[in-house]
Amino acid sequence: MKGFTIWFTGLPCSGKTTLATLLHNHLWEQGIANVELLDGDVVRQYLTRGLGYSKQDRDENIRRIGWLSRTLNKHGIHAIVAAISPYREAREEQRRLIENYFEVFVSCPEKICEQRDVKGMYKKARQGMIEHFTGVDDPYEEPLTPDLVIETDTLSIEDSFKLLLDKLSAKIFRR
Amino acid sequence: MKGFTIWFTGLPCSGKTTLATLLHNHLWEQGIANVELLDGDVVRQYLTRGLGYSKQDRDENIRRIGWLSRTLNKHGIHAIVAAISPYREAREEQRRLIENYFEVFVSCPEKICEQRDVKGMYKKARQGMIEHFTGVDDPYEEPLTPDLVIETDTLSIEDSFKLLLDKLSAKIFRR
Repeated sequence: MKGFTIWFTGLPCSGKTTLATLLHNHLWEQGIANVELLDGDVVRQYLTRGLGYSKQDRDENIRRIGWLSRTLNKHGIHAIVAAISPYREAREEQRRLIENYFEVFVSCPEKICEQRDVKGMYKKARQGMIEHFTGVDDPYEEPLTPDLVIETDTLSIEDSFKLLLDKLSAKIFRR
Repeated sequence: MKGFTIWFTGLPCSGKTTLATLLHNHLWEQGIANVELLDGDVVRQYLTRGLGYSKQDRDENIRRIGWLSRTLNKHGIHAIVAAISPYREAREEQRRLIENYFEVFVSCPEKICEQRDVKGMYKKARQGMIEHFTGVDDPYEEPLTPDLVIETDTLSIEDSFKLLLDKLSAKIFRR
């Protein structure tokens, strides 16, 4: 049985990694161990080292994560992806390629993301120390037809996660 | 239960892909479907596009294939790798990192490999049309302590494969 790919997209600091990690850990606690967390920042250390943040490199990054997800899914391993994945076309390509693709748009206004900025990345981008920073000097194309929208500026982490689980449970837990 | 990584190393046209593919198909026929074939040439199209053939890029290529193998093994998926992997240190790093690592040195004198050269790659390398070609103008460091040596210049494909299966069967099929 093929695995699912749950793909979290959104601005930096919107809550993608938080929700993806909560989901991963929850599944483990439920005894669902056939699941792999593919966090964009972590993947860049292994799979896509050397790629930058131009549109071309970002698209290549997404393509590799997508290929890895498909490879895992083929063997019944669920993939949980947390990656900005700012370009609509690159995401839609993955939707076409991945059989069980579930896109979660982690929606949060840029201003709120910037206030959360725990690693000080927005600040560095504003100061010009980081270039091609999504939300500052690089675009984010919002999904038009995501499978789920979670507005993390209005929902607490707990309520965001509850909404996610409710939507996913019919898809994953029944299997 | 963790999967195995069977890592075929050797010169271009030594027989790595042939043996790896035979093994993959044999396992499938035996009902062992939790196995993924990672052929160096194929992987370069997805995982490592953009990498060249300098030592640094070759090492990065091996590191990525190794990381992918570990990720698959973690979920009980066997990885069958067919990659020139010319540098000893890069291979030894994978041996340290991959829990169930089984290295097959597909041994064949360069002259014989060149005679087999179905894609005409050695010819192009001799003509200077391909640079950094292992066996021509790039080194191949033979394994000092592989788990298995298969001399494909003296053994037929059938006998090579039989030797491989005999050695592996105790490790994989018993599981």
